[in-house]
Amino acid sequence: MTEFDTGLPSVRQVQKYIKEQQKIVIQLTTQETITGQVLWQDPQCICVSDQSEQSLLIWRQALIYIKPVP
Amino acid sequence: MTEFDTGLPSVRQVQKYIKEQQKIVIQLTTQETITGQVLWQDPQCICVSDQSEQSLLIWRQALIYIKPVP
Amino acid sequence: MTEFDTGLPSVRQVQKYIKEQQKIVIQLTTQETITGQVLWQDPQCICVSDQSEQSLLIWRQALIYIKPVP
Amino acid sequence: MTEFDTGLPSVRQVQKYIKEQQKIVIQLTTQETITGQVLWQDPQCICVSDQSEQSLLIWRQALIYIKPVP
Amino acid sequence: MTEFDTGLPSVRQVQKYIKEQQKIVIQLTTQETITGQVLWQDPQCICVSDQSEQSLLIWRQALIYIKPVP
Amino acid sequence: MTEFDTGLPSVRQVQKYIKEQQKIVIQLTTQETITGQVLWQDPQCICVSDQSEQSLLIWRQALIYIKPVP
Repeated sequence: MTEFDTGLPSVRQVQKYIKEQQKIVIQLTTQETITGQVLWQDPQCICVSDQSEQSLLIWRQALIYIKPVP
Repeated sequence: MTEFDTGLPSVRQVQKYIKEQQKIVIQLTTQETITGQVLWQDPQCICVSDQSEQSLLIWRQALIYIKPVP
Repeated sequence: MTEFDTGLPSVRQVQKYIKEQQKIVIQLTTQETITGQVLWQDPQCICVSDQSEQSLLIWRQALIYIKPVP
Repeated sequence: MTEFDTGLPSVRQVQKYIKEQQKIVIQLTTQETITGQVLWQDPQCICVSDQSEQSLLIWRQALIYIKPVP
Repeated sequence: MTEFDTGLPSVRQVQKYIKEQQKIVIQLTTQETITGQVLWQDPQCICVSDQSEQSLLIWRQALIYIKPVP
Repeated sequence: MTEFDTGLPSVRQVQKYIKEQQKIVIQLTTQETITGQVLWQDPQCICVSDQSEQSLLIWRQALIYIKPVP
């Protein structure tokens, strides 16, 4: 959780999703899936706008994977 | 868990919910959902007043996401 | 897990429960709920006396939330 | 997980169970319960002899609570 | 999570899977299984191309095991 | 997860299983059980050869316990 170097490929991949307003699917540890766009990230959370345009503050510890919606 | 810099966007977002007494929904790792208001936060916990006005001390490790109630 | 500063509001809240022998409910990551009194806390665990007066050594990583019994 | 100070009350409590060969119940994150005696502890694991006298190396991250068998 | 030394056998094993384009199965904490090829790894994530050629950014905290498809 | 001192009893216990090619059972956080032999360990993973002689790279965060097969 202490790894947050803006030069890391994974941090840059998420940054790319933010800039390109890429629609993504986030799989969470609770089995729940969120579809939306990443608004911003910081070392603790990522902020996502979901399909009903609600803004969710998601803790990084809850992340399983992120994939783009084709 | 060691990330708690009051300048971080995610810490400030929660601080904003506290100041504005924003009604929020918290999704926990146990699948349980808490609706209420954040009273305060520290590096270990957030303290929330739920709908029956009970005060819950929630450990950060239990957080999945927080979203505002529209 | 490395956050244990006796000046933190959340550590002091638990300390207050200890001093006042407040009856509390602890929600654990396993979904199990413990009702009882906190006897002491340290950076790794909290020790709780449950309703059958058994003493449980609970690891902090297992905590979801603590709330007082009204 | 980085907290392992032999002076901590929780570390000493486990040490007391070892010395007194106290029969204990261990609740694990998988919901499984182990009954037996703690043989030794180190910063990463506790080693337990279960009821069939098998020796289990249990990772600390898997611990929910330990309680003595009355 | 703070262990990411490119000289570690486990980091080199994953690196070997990348170079050899080894088809692998990844078991995740959510019970979900991903079959595909590892594209790259960094201290926070591994990036995997799954069977529908989608690119998944998988957080390391979600990993249970990786095994090659025979 | 940062504890990996080759002098620790738990690290040496696993090392003993490796040297003696001890058949062991590994309980994982997903409830899955792996039976096999530990091939090597490093601070991030243990590598296990299972009953179909497949080599699994198991992340330490996924470990509940290891016990020898009698």
